[in-house]
Amino acid sequence: MIHSALFSPAATALVGASTDVGKFSGKLFHYFRARGYGGALWPVNPKYERLDDLACYPSLADLPGPVDHVGVAVAPHRVIPTLEEAIAAGAKAATVFSAGFAESGTEEGRALQERLSAFCRETGLAVVGPNCNGILNIRDGFVLSATAAVHNPALKPGPIGIVSQSGGFGQIGVMWRAMEMGLGVGLQVSCGNEAGLTASEIAGLMLDDPDIGIVLLALESIRDGAGLLSLGEKARAAGKPVVAVKLGRSSLGAKAASSHTAALVGADEVHDAALAQAGIVRVDTAQELCDVAMLYTGGKRPRDNGVAAVSLSGGSLVAAADHAEPNGLAFPAYQETTLEALRGLIPGFINVSNPTDLSPQAIGNREIFRSTLQTLAADPGVGTLMPILTLSQGPIVETICEVAQQSAQLTMVVWVGGTTDGSEAPAMSGLFHGVPVFRDIEPAMKALGHLLASMSALGRTEGAPEAPAGIDRDRALRIAGAGGELSAREAKEVLKAYGIATTAERLATSEAEAVAAFEAVGRPVVMKIDAEGVAHKSDIGGVALGLASGEAVRDAYRTMLERVAAHVEPSAIRGVTIEPMAPRGFEALLGFSEDPIYGPVVALGAGGILAEYLGRPVLRLPPLSEAAAREMVEAMPGRRVLSGVRGEAARDVGALVDLVVRFSHLAHDLAGTVREMDVNPVIVGAEGEGAIAVDALMVKGA
Amino acid sequence: MIHSALFSPAATALVGASTDVGKFSGKLFHYFRARGYGGALWPVNPKYERLDDLACYPSLADLPGPVDHVGVAVAPHRVIPTLEEAIAAGAKAATVFSAGFAESGTEEGRALQERLSAFCRETGLAVVGPNCNGILNIRDGFVLSATAAVHNPALKPGPIGIVSQSGGFGQIGVMWRAMEMGLGVGLQVSCGNEAGLTASEIAGLMLDDPDIGIVLLALESIRDGAGLLSLGEKARAAGKPVVAVKLGRSSLGAKAASSHTAALVGADEVHDAALAQAGIVRVDTAQELCDVAMLYTGGKRPRDNGVAAVSLSGGSLVAAADHAEPNGLAFPAYQETTLEALRGLIPGFINVSNPTDLSPQAIGNREIFRSTLQTLAADPGVGTLMPILTLSQGPIVETICEVAQQSAQLTMVVWVGGTTDGSEAPAMSGLFHGVPVFRDIEPAMKALGHLLASMSALGRTEGAPEAPAGIDRDRALRIAGAGGELSAREAKEVLKAYGIATTAERLATSEAEAVAAFEAVGRPVVMKIDAEGVAHKSDIGGVALGLASGEAVRDAYRTMLERVAAHVEPSAIRGVTIEPMAPRGFEALLGFSEDPIYGPVVALGAGGILAEYLGRPVLRLPPLSEAAAREMVEAMPGRRVLSGVRGEAARDVGALVDLVVRFSHLAHDLAGTVREMDVNPVIVGAEGEGAIAVDALMVKGA
Repeated sequence: MIHSALFSPAATALVGASTDVGKFSGKLFHYFRARGYGGALWPVNPKYERLDDLACYPSLADLPGPVDHVGVAVAPHRVIPTLEEAIAAGAKAATVFSAGFAESGTEEGRALQERLSAFCRETGLAVVGPNCNGILNIRDGFVLSATAAVHNPALKPGPIGIVSQSGGFGQIGVMWRAMEMGLGVGLQVSCGNEAGLTASEIAGLMLDDPDIGIVLLALESIRDGAGLLSLGEKARAAGKPVVAVKLGRSSLGAKAASSHTAALVGADEVHDAALAQAGIVRVDTAQELCDVAMLYTGGKRPRDNGVAAVSLSGGSLVAAADHAEPNGLAFPAYQETTLEALRGLIPGFINVSNPTDLSPQAIGNREIFRSTLQTLAADPGVGTLMPILTLSQGPIVETICEVAQQSAQLTMVVWVGGTTDGSEAPAMSGLFHGVPVFRDIEPAMKALGHLLASMSALGRTEGAPEAPAGIDRDRALRIAGAGGELSAREAKEVLKAYGIATTAERLATSEAEAVAAFEAVGRPVVMKIDAEGVAHKSDIGGVALGLASGEAVRDAYRTMLERVAAHVEPSAIRGVTIEPMAPRGFEALLGFSEDPIYGPVVALGAGGILAEYLGRPVLRLPPLSEAAAREMVEAMPGRRVLSGVRGEAARDVGALVDLVVRFSHLAHDLAGTVREMDVNPVIVGAEGEGAIAVDALMVKGA
Repeated sequence: MIHSALFSPAATALVGASTDVGKFSGKLFHYFRARGYGGALWPVNPKYERLDDLACYPSLADLPGPVDHVGVAVAPHRVIPTLEEAIAAGAKAATVFSAGFAESGTEEGRALQERLSAFCRETGLAVVGPNCNGILNIRDGFVLSATAAVHNPALKPGPIGIVSQSGGFGQIGVMWRAMEMGLGVGLQVSCGNEAGLTASEIAGLMLDDPDIGIVLLALESIRDGAGLLSLGEKARAAGKPVVAVKLGRSSLGAKAASSHTAALVGADEVHDAALAQAGIVRVDTAQELCDVAMLYTGGKRPRDNGVAAVSLSGGSLVAAADHAEPNGLAFPAYQETTLEALRGLIPGFINVSNPTDLSPQAIGNREIFRSTLQTLAADPGVGTLMPILTLSQGPIVETICEVAQQSAQLTMVVWVGGTTDGSEAPAMSGLFHGVPVFRDIEPAMKALGHLLASMSALGRTEGAPEAPAGIDRDRALRIAGAGGELSAREAKEVLKAYGIATTAERLATSEAEAVAAFEAVGRPVVMKIDAEGVAHKSDIGGVALGLASGEAVRDAYRTMLERVAAHVEPSAIRGVTIEPMAPRGFEALLGFSEDPIYGPVVALGAGGILAEYLGRPVLRLPPLSEAAAREMVEAMPGRRVLSGVRGEAARDVGALVDLVVRFSHLAHDLAGTVREMDVNPVIVGAEGEGAIAVDALMVKGA
């Protein structure tokens, strides 16, 4: 119902309409009529009795019947009253073009936007905007947007949905490009500040449309973390890919983004993690969005990542090979039956391999192209056919397009040159006689890689992130929720409540207790002073390593308390802690922290000194299923070392995965009570030895 | 002289010419006449008396006058005899189209090519080919190539030179694309197997041409390492950029390359290092080659990396900002005078920043575009002006092009959409009214980054790699040249001869000698068994660490010999080595190895366990100047740690640089005697403590 009120209302009112095309409101009215919408249009403006050939109404209360969708182009402070009137007039959806909200950067604008958001929540009205450029439904000719793009005769309906915040980037950068490429666009929404519906919610509504097969997101910011994950689930359920450009990758880009859209922008890696987890493939440019949409549009899905490339230009094949691995593609060896068939086609095909250098006999010979492509299409290792042309002739291109349309395989043509017989050649990448043609090799390989990544994300069946056994959530919340800051000992208690192994740590307040603790925790041990206000224990002689006998523990206790007494008031000394020496193993760092958009984000990286050398930690949103945790461990920096390098034993990856699953539930459950937590190091022992948390830091606060 | 015989001969003979355009020789003859060459063309073929309107000669001996350049399209075994006749007829240059040489993969073909190479060396004849598609000089209409591209009316002369091995990739992938983009191409050579002139030599000859301003290399292989470095020097001297695509990056690509061109293909990183050292900017695609050539063509050079972007689409500006840093570009803040002037132009320009979001008042207003761009062009921080258009109108575009042509700054337009007034818009990236226009943001930013990198490489003034003082080359050669394999002790002697500090290591054959050695080398020491055939000393109790007193050394000697006696024949035991415990510090790995194309290549990476974690070593071709060695150290994996992380002192980078300079001379001087060498670890102490080679391995052989 929201879907039809939003995208194909039977009656639409336009509040603030005019015929002055020098004004935004006039443009809106003008473009609304551009594509012959079948529903009713009721302009509302007390200044006019008629606008062109239409009656104009003084207010929404005066409309001749119930309205479904109201477009609002009035002064910002008039927006909420107008929406109230819209609801009274029967509206289920509204598009607010008016600017002057959060994007203005003023206190007043922000407050107005918060009021608008609250209004949307309370009333359930489906609102796009404010500060947006509206909605296009090309199929039904419903144009509620001031964009000259609708006058382009190349604009035609099709399976692509596009959601952007800004009009320019979504409607021109993506949609105009798509139409120039010969692609059909079904729905396009510029959602502006997202005070009502978020970009993810709008994309989700597009997925409900049976005519939409793929949704492209062109976002300057992501404001709705939970919505993004829901969108991903919806896409998986519908089997429809969602592909995204998320601008603001660089710090400079992020700065420009926040000044432009007044959105909170987190670290870019968090977006990467969230998009990956949602199964939304992230690409870098508007062109890449359109390229993958073009491959999708033809309806043929590659079985796998095997490509067969054929060309008369050996150099082009080398270039194609160069771009295979970085895009997750392969040129598999042909099956023996394929090889035999190829040898039968051309005498020169003795050492035929993939990518396939066609012999000069193929020049100008459409039958060789036809039979070669047909033969390759029958090879079960070939998921995609890729003829690469330099200069060609009309009949050859015609033949390739014919084979492409008849074949069950995806065929994508790379055509870096033109024709020598005066026949037509494409000036830019796009559909050419219904076949995807790319003007260069690299973007073709990239687009295919993106399509395959998208299909693989849609096909992912991941267990629900159910909490493993042995979690005592209440105990953890009790410890974490107690007053004051938490010590490392308490943080480790919280970990234990989630079934995470930690090194034992005991407080001792006498020589005898110290020795008893030593006997209890195993040997050798570390002794550390436990005193209020002492941050750097070793600076005051408060750490003793490798104590291996009761005698050594007794001595160390005595001398440590003597040394420390010179620096600390006796009343501040709580005693010493005794813990076993950290076991040997790979040191990992595991933590979580609250992100303003996504909530708690779990980070897994290399710990200890390696953290200085290796890349930034890998991020995921909790809670994690075992499969997701395993994938996280596989992606962590230093992963290679876990398999055992230089003759060292392989590390206990299974134990680390279990620990990550438990920690992700901890992060999910404790968010709100605990703001951030670091477990550093987690020591991952050899296969079968487990993984253990050695030290932990917890910071409270929502 | 070679230059004119090669590119603009007064008389050209074509041996094997025919009028059968179904054959290669007929195509050659046909295309030769396509562009109205002013010189004489003498077809040579005993089968014909005339070809079209021209006299055809039975042999080169029958020509009516001296010939400058001979095109050869005869059977492979006839090539050398034909070239002999060519020399007799006065030829200074020849182009050999004939195939059947090394690219055939046969023993015979390889032998034939070796003979041809020797012939070229001995006679000094400038030979392009074999297995090539020849030479185009568009300015003079000299077409010695069978390419239909010459019939394209868009092909016009200009400052671009193009060298490729294959015809398809160079003539279509690059040249055709360039002409479609409206760029002028002066010279184009497809050099095939390079038995005579190499790609680098041909590119160097192009640089001599006053009409050529930039050379594009589109190579499947680099066969001439020294030539590439000379080309770089020549480019610097001429102040003309050389930009390269080198295919075969991936292992798959490399495989395809070697099967296609029969060239030796080394590790791709070696090519990266060599190209960087030669100052040749490496790009990834033919499109990128053309994009940087387009920016170069206009003749305006950005002062620095500061860009001013203006647009009506905020989203596009965010995208531009995203691509700035990865391409070495910046959007500098405008000067105060610029800001004031901008505020005067539009009332909305209160918080104007760079990239600059033009207010909606600029829509359709050519004067605002004009004055904004003119104001920005006057800002000294702005090196390049980048208007970003979505939908625009003819007058606006006209104004932008006007300002672009009048301004001293480079102006590049990004135009992602089209026009709303029916005026012309470019379908693809290219010159538009003489101004470089890109259809997407990312390629524009990339091209500007490449242009700046190229200019910076041309401007590099690097000291000659003079050998530092304290090198005893003869001593090193004496040690390295002695019979048999070299021990670590001898390898370290070689390092010492190059003034590289090494840990002292002494052989002792008795308790007393061991103690004396301990006294001499400093304490504590490591003792290792020195016995023939013992690879893993610690496995048999042959290593003792941290010996800090004469007594400890004496005990260790006795017990070590006892333990070892259980595993090794007494006659095999040479004694023990005594060396100081390795100092603490950053462990680097330094080595060199012979590359078949470039000769010795020096590698610098992280040593010890870090080598497992960090990226692959950085490579350079020796010998290195101090500046080049410093740049190598700056680029090494783990570099960050040398500055001191986690409160550790900064390492002695100066000492490491000096060590690298010395080692690079060693690698340069000993190549031929030593095939490879590893110094692992080099320990880099804290600032002022120096760097020292702890262990070394040397493998002899040319």
